[in-house]
Amino acid sequence: MQFVATEHQHRRLNPLNGQWVLVCPHRMQRPWSGQEEKPQLNEQPEFDPTNPLCPGVKRPNGIITERYDSTYVFDNDFPALLEQVPSPPASDDPLFQAAPARGNCRVMCFHPKSNLTLPTMSVMEIRAVIDEWIRQFNELSGKYAWVQIFENKGATMGCSNPHPHCQIWSCSFLPTEPQQKQERLRAYYATHDRPMLGDYMERELQRKERIVIENPDWLVVVPYWAIWPFETMLISRNNNKRINDLTDNQRHNLAVTIKQLTTKYDNLFKCSFPYSMGWHGAPTGPEHAHASSAHWTLHAIYYPPLLRSATVRKFMVGFELLAMAQRDLTPEQAAQRLRDSDGTKHYLSK
Amino acid sequence: MQFVATEHQHRRLNPLNGQWVLVCPHRMQRPWSGQEEKPQLNEQPEFDPTNPLCPGVKRPNGIITERYDSTYVFDNDFPALLEQVPSPPASDDPLFQAAPARGNCRVMCFHPKSNLTLPTMSVMEIRAVIDEWIRQFNELSGKYAWVQIFENKGATMGCSNPHPHCQIWSCSFLPTEPQQKQERLRAYYATHDRPMLGDYMERELQRKERIVIENPDWLVVVPYWAIWPFETMLISRNNNKRINDLTDNQRHNLAVTIKQLTTKYDNLFKCSFPYSMGWHGAPTGPEHAHASSAHWTLHAIYYPPLLRSATVRKFMVGFELLAMAQRDLTPEQAAQRLRDSDGTKHYLSK
Ligand SMILES: O=P(O)(O)O[C@H]1O[C@H](CO)[C@@H](O)[C@H](O)[C@H]1O
Ligand SMILES: O=P(O)(O)O[C@H]1O[C@H](CO)[C@@H](O)[C@H](O)[C@H]1O
Repeated sequence: MQFVATEHQHRRLNPLNGQWVLVCPHRMQRPWSGQEEKPQLNEQPEFDPTNPLCPGVKRPNGIITERYDSTYVFDNDFPALLEQVPSPPASDDPLFQAAPARGNCRVMCFHPKSNLTLPTMSVMEIRAVIDEWIRQFNELSGKYAWVQIFENKGATMGCSNPHPHCQIWSCSFLPTEPQQKQERLRAYYATHDRPMLGDYMERELQRKERIVIENPDWLVVVPYWAIWPFETMLISRNNNKRINDLTDNQRHNLAVTIKQLTTKYDNLFKCSFPYSMGWHGAPTGPEHAHASSAHWTLHAIYYPPLLRSATVRKFMVGFELLAMAQRDLTPEQAAQRLRDSDGTKHYLSK
Repeated sequence: MQFVATEHQHRRLNPLNGQWVLVCPHRMQRPWSGQEEKPQLNEQPEFDPTNPLCPGVKRPNGIITERYDSTYVFDNDFPALLEQVPSPPASDDPLFQAAPARGNCRVMCFHPKSNLTLPTMSVMEIRAVIDEWIRQFNELSGKYAWVQIFENKGATMGCSNPHPHCQIWSCSFLPTEPQQKQERLRAYYATHDRPMLGDYMERELQRKERIVIENPDWLVVVPYWAIWPFETMLISRNNNKRINDLTDNQRHNLAVTIKQLTTKYDNLFKCSFPYSMGWHGAPTGPEHAHASSAHWTLHAIYYPPLLRSATVRKFMVGFELLAMAQRDLTPEQAAQRLRDSDGTKHYLSK
């Protein structure tokens, strides 16, 4: 029998973290009788006087959110990371190792209106979000080793506030995921003398099987090693290392690309498509300021949980938590469906 | 200021996989306005003629589930892993690596009655489950490198059928998690000449901060590096390497321990406590039959998602997926609450 990727289970390697994912496309045939998600629809009012992210509303700590008219950034009222905390005592026991963690958590509203999301915002408004990301990154990257910009979208992704916003958590240390990438990208560069993701894009552009969006500045693919059903990577084609390297034109095209990608997502299952997304680029802070970043390529990753419809998600549970990641459709099938999904007209627009 | 683990954020290292977790106990103070889970209550009928896991019911593929009266095992009708599949072609491109994956997926019912769960089953009935685990393991471990026994409990954990059951996925290869453990345990053994988890238990028994249940055969702790709020590890104290090493008496005590632990879980938030759990021990199959397993210690891991109540879970999303695991209360606080939770009388029993 000949191997057919869309029919036969196999494993694929993620060269960015050295982990394998189990691909089981034949599994899409099984019926689903488990938990159904509430489909996320755009049912927010434009302004909710009880929502602390809306302009002019008082937050639980008494501070009033400014009457902003574009983006708006403030320190998280319940930050996971604080700047001033004592360090845990050093331990020489390899089984009880603790390390300091200092940082800062910010909340960034995308727009004053609660009933908008990135795909329903204009390119100009998305551009304002990108500019704010870069302003924040410029400010925080001087001090912190890692500035994690991320958006949790939708209640299914643990988002506790429906107002369009993201978060920025800055860390005095390199967290696990970027640390692994740092090592793998560096090793690849040492061997091949080229950044891994540059080579990767080149091959994807030849193979054309996993491309979702392609323009002169950005490439969106469902990675060969994707874990989540409709996971994508949005990669800079200009050898940018960090988000603040982007030129005016690249920022504009990024806004266009984000609008397209998120519109495709929403149109796929006709819902406000949930996901967690975030930016990865070369580490920062005094520690990394003078280190080479030649091995890095700026990229964003989208992790959306939905699998079959607006209400049926993929659960990463027993086998996935205890053994390894497992996916049900192939990355090529997912890319095909995202290519076919309209990226220009949102299903809610007239 | 002096460091206080229950107040000050810090990182902890998991020596079993080399990954750090961010501990942010001060975060428990923040209000929650996000998604609420449906609390899982024991509302199943004893017998549901439409549930394919119930005795005598016809499954979607036409096969009739036997009229069993204890445990019952059958091949998953929609298996992720099949025995006979062609292998993907070899590739010399480091960015596009695929590997074969062969295996087998079984479903194992714990009891004929749909309205029972492990904590509401008798010790004798749980003992039957353990004996079946071992029978299955004996049968499958001769052929497969890894036999993953795992239970997804509750709709929140992706469980698509409320009948008490677990799954057994056997793999022709070592999946990511066990592979990492294999390497770390082996390295520790090479340096210290003792199994890591043996040393770990010794220290936990001295420190007494994270113990949930202790008896001559089994130790249950919230690991120092736990990720999920009420994560626990159930570890063999008898230097067992695999589940089929257990003596009659150790199996009996295991049944007692499982009943106690799951009763504590249910009593904590007065609900049928969701979790994913599974067994880890020395690898198997022809490939590992003659390798030393001295570095291994048999253990089970419980990953429960709930954080604050029966309806508020911890979401592992943006920062966790893109940067690193993050937890809100300390493992010591979680252990204290599980110690205080009654392990003898289930909240539903009269
Ligand atoms: O086979 P089940 O119980 O329907 O499926 C459940 O467990 C599997 C193994 O952890 C997961 O891959 C699925 O996402 C989950 O819904
Ligand atoms: O800060 P939020 O949006 O309330 O919280 C959300 O994102 C955080 C960062 O990914 C997670 O730790 C939380 O579990 C999640 O609910």
